[in-house]
Amino acid sequence: MTSIDLNSDLGEGYGAWKMGDDEAMLDIVSSANVACGFHAGDPQGILTTLRQAAARGVAVGAHVSYPDRVGFGRRPMDVTSAELTADVIYQIGAMQGLATAAGTRVSYVKPHGALYNTIAGDARQADAVIAGIREVDPGLILMGLAGAPILSRAQEAGLATVAEAFGDRAYTPQGHLVSRREAGAVLHDAKMVAARMVRLATEGVIEAIDGSTLTLKADSICVHGDSAGAVQMAQHIREGLIAAGVTVAPFAPEAG
Amino acid sequence: MTSIDLNSDLGEGYGAWKMGDDEAMLDIVSSANVACGFHAGDPQGILTTLRQAAARGVAVGAHVSYPDRVGFGRRPMDVTSAELTADVIYQIGAMQGLATAAGTRVSYVKPHGALYNTIAGDARQADAVIAGIREVDPGLILMGLAGAPILSRAQEAGLATVAEAFGDRAYTPQGHLVSRREAGAVLHDAKMVAARMVRLATEGVIEAIDGSTLTLKADSICVHGDSAGAVQMAQHIREGLIAAGVTVAPFAPEAG
Amino acid sequence: MTSIDLNSDLGEGYGAWKMGDDEAMLDIVSSANVACGFHAGDPQGILTTLRQAAARGVAVGAHVSYPDRVGFGRRPMDVTSAELTADVIYQIGAMQGLATAAGTRVSYVKPHGALYNTIAGDARQADAVIAGIREVDPGLILMGLAGAPILSRAQEAGLATVAEAFGDRAYTPQGHLVSRREAGAVLHDAKMVAARMVRLATEGVIEAIDGSTLTLKADSICVHGDSAGAVQMAQHIREGLIAAGVTVAPFAPEAG
Amino acid sequence: MTSIDLNSDLGEGYGAWKMGDDEAMLDIVSSANVACGFHAGDPQGILTTLRQAAARGVAVGAHVSYPDRVGFGRRPMDVTSAELTADVIYQIGAMQGLATAAGTRVSYVKPHGALYNTIAGDARQADAVIAGIREVDPGLILMGLAGAPILSRAQEAGLATVAEAFGDRAYTPQGHLVSRREAGAVLHDAKMVAARMVRLATEGVIEAIDGSTLTLKADSICVHGDSAGAVQMAQHIREGLIAAGVTVAPFAPEAG
Repeated sequence: MTSIDLNSDLGEGYGAWKMGDDEAMLDIVSSANVACGFHAGDPQGILTTLRQAAARGVAVGAHVSYPDRVGFGRRPMDVTSAELTADVIYQIGAMQGLATAAGTRVSYVKPHGALYNTIAGDARQADAVIAGIREVDPGLILMGLAGAPILSRAQEAGLATVAEAFGDRAYTPQGHLVSRREAGAVLHDAKMVAARMVRLATEGVIEAIDGSTLTLKADSICVHGDSAGAVQMAQHIREGLIAAGVTVAPFAPEAG
Repeated sequence: MTSIDLNSDLGEGYGAWKMGDDEAMLDIVSSANVACGFHAGDPQGILTTLRQAAARGVAVGAHVSYPDRVGFGRRPMDVTSAELTADVIYQIGAMQGLATAAGTRVSYVKPHGALYNTIAGDARQADAVIAGIREVDPGLILMGLAGAPILSRAQEAGLATVAEAFGDRAYTPQGHLVSRREAGAVLHDAKMVAARMVRLATEGVIEAIDGSTLTLKADSICVHGDSAGAVQMAQHIREGLIAAGVTVAPFAPEAG
Repeated sequence: MTSIDLNSDLGEGYGAWKMGDDEAMLDIVSSANVACGFHAGDPQGILTTLRQAAARGVAVGAHVSYPDRVGFGRRPMDVTSAELTADVIYQIGAMQGLATAAGTRVSYVKPHGALYNTIAGDARQADAVIAGIREVDPGLILMGLAGAPILSRAQEAGLATVAEAFGDRAYTPQGHLVSRREAGAVLHDAKMVAARMVRLATEGVIEAIDGSTLTLKADSICVHGDSAGAVQMAQHIREGLIAAGVTVAPFAPEAG
Repeated sequence: MTSIDLNSDLGEGYGAWKMGDDEAMLDIVSSANVACGFHAGDPQGILTTLRQAAARGVAVGAHVSYPDRVGFGRRPMDVTSAELTADVIYQIGAMQGLATAAGTRVSYVKPHGALYNTIAGDARQADAVIAGIREVDPGLILMGLAGAPILSRAQEAGLATVAEAFGDRAYTPQGHLVSRREAGAVLHDAKMVAARMVRLATEGVIEAIDGSTLTLKADSICVHGDSAGAVQMAQHIREGLIAAGVTVAPFAPEAG
């Protein structure tokens, strides 16, 4: 039986500020990338999200970031390796503590925003993140972009990895994401996106922006919940997968 | 053989800012209350302090605080119980992660500054701290002021506790600290302080400010390292204890 | 011709987080209490709000707060007078700089949240706020709760003041706000609230919670915009005032 | 009569943390680059530094930074132009407010750390800083590295500028600073440094690292105060200049 994971960024409120509808998304996804307080998330809010995830058997990942709350972790920062490694450990540890309190545990780590993009290409920062994960818990799985060098780099360092695809993004024939600056980079047709993800899950291929067919190995699909339309698209993807006989389940099922 | 613990606040730098001489103090104390990032301490600096503590077999405590870096956690804040519990869990978790990376572990929790003082008398906030510790790890020991209600309250909630005395503070005949606003509250004579602590460790008594003799049960002595004079006094206390045949060792020896 | 001011808390987003609908409220109010970055507001967002206020001739107040972003400035903090005075100056100065860039100026200062409530009764903190305003610009007007001692205290110190009433709050026969913990403290009937505010503006009286009539001198009415219902109530109040022949205009008309 | 300015980074403490000896440096320099709270400096501490500067007639500059306190503003950040412009305005405004309270005023703006280095070569970020200065007060002077493109760029935008040289740094024959990664980049001989600065002030030349003589037009010399040795070197430079008949005075003398 074919199975795939759906993941989404959650716990991204901060104090009095809300972002997205965590409960709606937790009914859709199988894995929650939960903000650790560096780009978003305060302890009380994170704990609430973790309890909601635990109640639904949704797996938990630490969504680690650069320390840049006002920039939501979206601004590249040239941090030292020692800073980055320690920041990663701190965030994972904090999330592990809150997860324990919520009756769940941290299964994986997904870098957020600018850090996610930077380590796809910057080996130094990638190694610093990998070192942080290994030092706090080498059993944690690193989630990264399907096809990105960071995944093989992490595997060589002894970490298990999981590759994710983006439901609402176009791919180049080489398997890269089409840059958001280019036309057609972001897909808005929920029905079409759902069909793409069914094909990805069942055949391991996705249609590239030039119409060619691309082999893409992904264990998880990233969906968004930052708008009503995004939640709806995520729901479409989930329903499309199930209708096609694909099970939506955490890649790390023991985590629930 | 009589044994007592010496503890001190460490890891209190922040980024480019230094505070105290951690390495000097780690050669003196047996337990380090390490800042968790809320009043002081950044991940890289905390990790350095933890590695230094681990190298010396010094036990590690999470020095949890209100979220008030600019006020160094010294300003009373009327936080909700849910906020405080989650803040405590977050800080302990972060410290556990960093401790694991440093090859040690968190043995105990000591509230810092205004939080320390507030929970001595405020049952609601005390309960919120106790709940936070229990939810993340009920095996953690709570360190508090010898004689303070928080200790029995924590014990009733199932936590182990350790009582600390202050080497450089005068006591009332009732066993309270003399307020810093009163004359004679802070003791400056290192030799006299060392003699007081030897008596505390060996006889379980301390001379109160009125000359009466006070029974005081303390498992740990808090010493300071925020000035050259403070380090020297801490060194005097350590040497006085050893000269009197008292072993200076963590109250949680398995922690080293 | 009778005139009254309508004020609302604006600029309360932070980075990627939004709060309320500033543009909708700026079409309703005549004065904007703009967050200064300590409880909410980042420079770019504040600047946007200020430009929108300037475009509409809405007067600008610096909505100064304790330094507590995660708590949204709602948690009482026992800060020193020197800290509070300097924090007030810093926030006013930052707002003045941004206001200049936006082509407007800061006309008044309104303390926010816990600081607003604390200085109503705490003379020491009240004096620290008054000192901060005076030191940066003695021409700034202090906005406070109609009837609160802070207003006469500020006047004695040489500051001009403006008294505000709350549209959606019940009053005791003594002219205090009914505590939110009591039933009936918050009013939800927009039509009734509008009628109360018309009477306040035209007759200088308001019906207290026990049905008695209370004399209340207020130059401004505080309205909220944190929900669709709140915006609607504010709109009702504005329309009710105008229908009754009351002009809605800044108490500091030169500010626009 | 020849005159030159000496400037130094001051007000770089934060809350309980101290950095450098502001009072010692204020007796040496004629211009103080005062931290604005983004990389260092809290309102109370900044105010204290400003009062000390005002008491000595030392001119005040706003030492604006990226928002990165834990990194002390030393880490390059890829901020948007709108963010950077607003951040610059906010910091200048806050400093102006505090300067007014301290009885002085802000005469100039000096970008700090990574921002200083970035805008030397990044025209987009340079323009964002220039825009921020112009929007809040086009009469403010921009201080930058002698020879850097940012200075002419600012002049074209209508700002006055002042060029600074570094006392303790070696120069390439092209007039650039020798990178800190290269041997000989930082000069440690106070006597030699003082002689170099006398020659710079009196002849407008400096000896480059290869022994060639370089024409360098600088109105200010940057000196450091972050260690006892640095304060001593700054004192040597001041004394050397005065002994050579050079007046040490602010480039913006009306500022004192």
